[in-house]
Amino acid sequence: MPEAVETLDGWYCLHDFRKVDWAKWKKASSEEREQALSELNHMMAAWEDIESDKIGSFGFYMIVGHKADLMFLNARPTMEELTELESSLNKSKMAEFLTQSYSYISVVELSTYMAYGKDPDTDPELQARLKPIFPKWDHVCFYPMDKRRLGEDNWYMESKDERGKLMYAHGQTGRKYAGKVRQMITGSQGLDDWEWGVTLFAHDPLQFKKLIYEMRFDEVSARFADFGSFYVGHRRDREELEKVLHV
Amino acid sequence: MPEAVETLDGWYCLHDFRKVDWAKWKKASSEEREQALSELNHMMAAWEDIESDKIGSFGFYMIVGHKADLMFLNARPTMEELTELESSLNKSKMAEFLTQSYSYISVVELSTYMAYGKDPDTDPELQARLKPIFPKWDHVCFYPMDKRRLGEDNWYMESKDERGKLMYAHGQTGRKYAGKVRQMITGSQGLDDWEWGVTLFAHDPLQFKKLIYEMRFDEVSARFADFGSFYVGHRRDREELEKVLHV
Amino acid sequence: MPEAVETLDGWYCLHDFRKVDWAKWKKASSEEREQALSELNHMMAAWEDIESDKIGSFGFYMIVGHKADLMFLNARPTMEELTELESSLNKSKMAEFLTQSYSYISVVELSTYMAYGKDPDTDPELQARLKPIFPKWDHVCFYPMDKRRLGEDNWYMESKDERGKLMYAHGQTGRKYAGKVRQMITGSQGLDDWEWGVTLFAHDPLQFKKLIYEMRFDEVSARFADFGSFYVGHRRDREELEKVLHV
Amino acid sequence: MPEAVETLDGWYCLHDFRKVDWAKWKKASSEEREQALSELNHMMAAWEDIESDKIGSFGFYMIVGHKADLMFLNARPTMEELTELESSLNKSKMAEFLTQSYSYISVVELSTYMAYGKDPDTDPELQARLKPIFPKWDHVCFYPMDKRRLGEDNWYMESKDERGKLMYAHGQTGRKYAGKVRQMITGSQGLDDWEWGVTLFAHDPLQFKKLIYEMRFDEVSARFADFGSFYVGHRRDREELEKVLHV
Amino acid sequence: MPEAVETLDGWYCLHDFRKVDWAKWKKASSEEREQALSELNHMMAAWEDIESDKIGSFGFYMIVGHKADLMFLNARPTMEELTELESSLNKSKMAEFLTQSYSYISVVELSTYMAYGKDPDTDPELQARLKPIFPKWDHVCFYPMDKRRLGEDNWYMESKDERGKLMYAHGQTGRKYAGKVRQMITGSQGLDDWEWGVTLFAHDPLQFKKLIYEMRFDEVSARFADFGSFYVGHRRDREELEKVLHV
Repeated sequence: MPEAVETLDGWYCLHDFRKVDWAKWKKASSEEREQALSELNHMMAAWEDIESDKIGSFGFYMIVGHKADLMFLNARPTMEELTELESSLNKSKMAEFLTQSYSYISVVELSTYMAYGKDPDTDPELQARLKPIFPKWDHVCFYPMDKRRLGEDNWYMESKDERGKLMYAHGQTGRKYAGKVRQMITGSQGLDDWEWGVTLFAHDPLQFKKLIYEMRFDEVSARFADFGSFYVGHRRDREELEKVLHV
Repeated sequence: MPEAVETLDGWYCLHDFRKVDWAKWKKASSEEREQALSELNHMMAAWEDIESDKIGSFGFYMIVGHKADLMFLNARPTMEELTELESSLNKSKMAEFLTQSYSYISVVELSTYMAYGKDPDTDPELQARLKPIFPKWDHVCFYPMDKRRLGEDNWYMESKDERGKLMYAHGQTGRKYAGKVRQMITGSQGLDDWEWGVTLFAHDPLQFKKLIYEMRFDEVSARFADFGSFYVGHRRDREELEKVLHV
Repeated sequence: MPEAVETLDGWYCLHDFRKVDWAKWKKASSEEREQALSELNHMMAAWEDIESDKIGSFGFYMIVGHKADLMFLNARPTMEELTELESSLNKSKMAEFLTQSYSYISVVELSTYMAYGKDPDTDPELQARLKPIFPKWDHVCFYPMDKRRLGEDNWYMESKDERGKLMYAHGQTGRKYAGKVRQMITGSQGLDDWEWGVTLFAHDPLQFKKLIYEMRFDEVSARFADFGSFYVGHRRDREELEKVLHV
Repeated sequence: MPEAVETLDGWYCLHDFRKVDWAKWKKASSEEREQALSELNHMMAAWEDIESDKIGSFGFYMIVGHKADLMFLNARPTMEELTELESSLNKSKMAEFLTQSYSYISVVELSTYMAYGKDPDTDPELQARLKPIFPKWDHVCFYPMDKRRLGEDNWYMESKDERGKLMYAHGQTGRKYAGKVRQMITGSQGLDDWEWGVTLFAHDPLQFKKLIYEMRFDEVSARFADFGSFYVGHRRDREELEKVLHV
Repeated sequence: MPEAVETLDGWYCLHDFRKVDWAKWKKASSEEREQALSELNHMMAAWEDIESDKIGSFGFYMIVGHKADLMFLNARPTMEELTELESSLNKSKMAEFLTQSYSYISVVELSTYMAYGKDPDTDPELQARLKPIFPKWDHVCFYPMDKRRLGEDNWYMESKDERGKLMYAHGQTGRKYAGKVRQMITGSQGLDDWEWGVTLFAHDPLQFKKLIYEMRFDEVSARFADFGSFYVGHRRDREELEKVLHV
């Protein structure tokens, strides 16, 4: 049943997590630091221009905890653009003071039932979801996940009807958070180590907890979801870059 | 059944674990060491002032074993305050001699049944639990945990009644340790890699073992609890900072 | 039933993943960088000559994400050639700026049923598959995998008929991607940490996601496949080497 | 049933595993090496004095394999003493050449049935077991373990009678090794990452293998035991310290 | 049933895996390199003398892939000899350029049924197997393994008869590879992190794959075997040492 596995795919996303080597950063001369910041600022400005041109999207975030200090989030029409963009960041002056502690490559994914009766190549709502401009909301949460295949709880052995029913109920839970949490689902089967990435945006980070907690009681999560690490942080404007890295 | 997943949420907590690079610390000049200690002392004093003002709480601990040497424990009304506070610590002189070996971000959580007939926004007892001043008891234990979702032992597939019954019995075990162990439950679904954090305070660290051991026979732990690493240590006053780091 | 476990085995493959130490690379003098690039260029030219002589194959790839920056993919008739080749790379000037973040040793494997009525030592099609020249397609995907042995889902306890039936259906899914994805299966039982390696080549990396996603619903994947990390990247000509490493 | 979970608890133990940075150690001046050895020798002498005073115990071991080179094993009446002792070692000259690759904090534990009809606070045999002087036997083995909670094999869901019966049979196996292997069980629920630590002492290391192998057929091990890493080594006198570290 | 767990135990084995720090090795002066090589050469010559005297055995291997570059394999009558030998290697000049990426300590093990009617202390064949001189075959494969204890697949809960039957069938598979693969089983319960080590020697490394693949269909492997990492490499004579490390 091929229709069971059809998805609409949009832009590729690279979640790029970096830790700052603060001791090394402080030891750098103020000229070096200025150069690094200025170069990164230009790079980020270019990524913002791409967003303005609607041929990609960009967000910059401060991450809490030991797993990362910063996240650079970029979306582009092709994977190669992201690979080249990551390479440019790696080669930049600033990267001499950063280590890449994690990353995730995936592609924006919509279920085909969302496109029922619509032409995904022209429908404005579908186009906006497939080529998303990241919301400028204050807080972000990212985690990768798998659908479980374990004994009786094997998602891929369930019937299409059963899967549809479970996903529909799950969607109902999500809908309660409209206006509070925006969700971007990206598929990564064959692209990265988990099957999906989930990126959430919120005005209040408590809504991440409330949403995830409530959803865990959905059968589709309770029986079929395996989660990776959770990365949570806060959006920062490019103008705040110097403040974020001020030492 | 939405009520099944409602919680009362209070202050955010950051458990920040650090290892000292003793060789580097000893190699530093005494001026550098004094500067680092003085700056950290001021930072900790500011965190104590925040506690005095009841707009947050702070504890400083020496941790036993290879997993960490120190824990800085802070609670604040918003997650951003903790992210900024962590960043300030990262940028401090002392941090040049520390590595952050682990951290945990979570939010104080109470079950709604505790608020039965009370207004959580004004009730003094609930307010004290949601905005906790960390007890100045001598010993601390932290560990993260999940509720298991595995075959027949799937917490999130149990009925609300069954969950309530199991949690009630678990609470009875905890109550036996009143006066010996104080417990702070923080939720971290959507915020960090496990579902909850548990922070215990005791006058005698043997009570950590006795409590955890006895609780493991509670069905809710035996069948449904998965545990992360345990971090155990001892409270140190700010006045002891120099002694803790004296080389 | 010995025939159940017979395979045709061809060339050995070494997937060699490297991360660039960009900070160190930039700090090197331009003479050092030129020397390193020139030596690597010669090495890669020699590997291309071996491919031209049809006594091996070679591909060079830029990998996206934190797991690696580059992949050197070589096939040779013997494992010793690959071990020596890896050692030569390790000893090269360029390797002073690379760390080997992952590697995989395996051997091209065909099911014997493919050879039905043919002499694998002379049949041109079988020979071409056993001694593969890597397609010069733009994108590559590598992942290792096991067949699961867990409770009721134990591949090695299934009958030969059942296994054949499941593999046949799986092959039908793969066939839909003819012209879009080329697949190379390499066996690594007794050679590396997983049982098989899968290397996919495509003109469009989205086809990796589509193929893997669709296949996951095949019973043989749903019930019996355990996957390692996925590495995805883009083919680069030797002429592009300087550009890839330009700083 | 509270009696099911009662234990007698004695001294705390710190198993402290260290790896030597041999290259750095050799590069040190002979004065530095002498200072480091002399200071460590004094520290160990002080620990031996504490053992002579029967207010603690100490053992020094050379560990085989890549996991560690040395183990410092100390027992003390309080956990704080061990935390301070570990900190003193961390601050010592020698520690500049050591990394702490693993550690374990636990407390000597006896089942209450051993105390039947005896006063654990005065009975000489119980006191000797709760406050153990480590045997001066030649070989040591340490490993942490959990009791399994998995499906049908859930130790904490078994009846007290069943647990007692299984533990009794297990004890019978251990008894066969009297005079060959001495065993010290330490509890670490709420203190470290596993539930128990097991420290074995023997005249012949082959007895570690024989004991563990034979015990694995006990139902309590076969169905309910999960094991961590095994560390094996050889006792060294303080007089041998210079020889162990001679370069 | 004590006889179920009886084994004949021979020499101890240390599998010692090392990675070369090639950048540091190349930076060393040619005098340093000569000194390091000469010292290692002498050490290896001494280990060969021990083999000639039949009081131990020694093999030197080049390992493919990122897990290791070299393996030093030694067998000795006592574990202490191996611990001292490892310490001597750690203290050698060459070790300044090596890191020990893995190691395994175990003891040669034979099933007692092999000794039926023979005196293991004098029988020449048994003695040769218990005190093995490593075959000078070209290729080596090492992996550790456990017998599974999971739900219905719990090796240690099977009857002695069932276990014997399964092991006998497994032995029949192995026997087909006589002359192609030589196998050395070493036990490591109570000594290292897995229950057994398996060391295979072959003239052609493809036989490792064929043997392991075929054996995986044996019920004893399919249902009861859990495997660690596989290390594969090639024997090198001491005369080749300089070539292996030539830069």
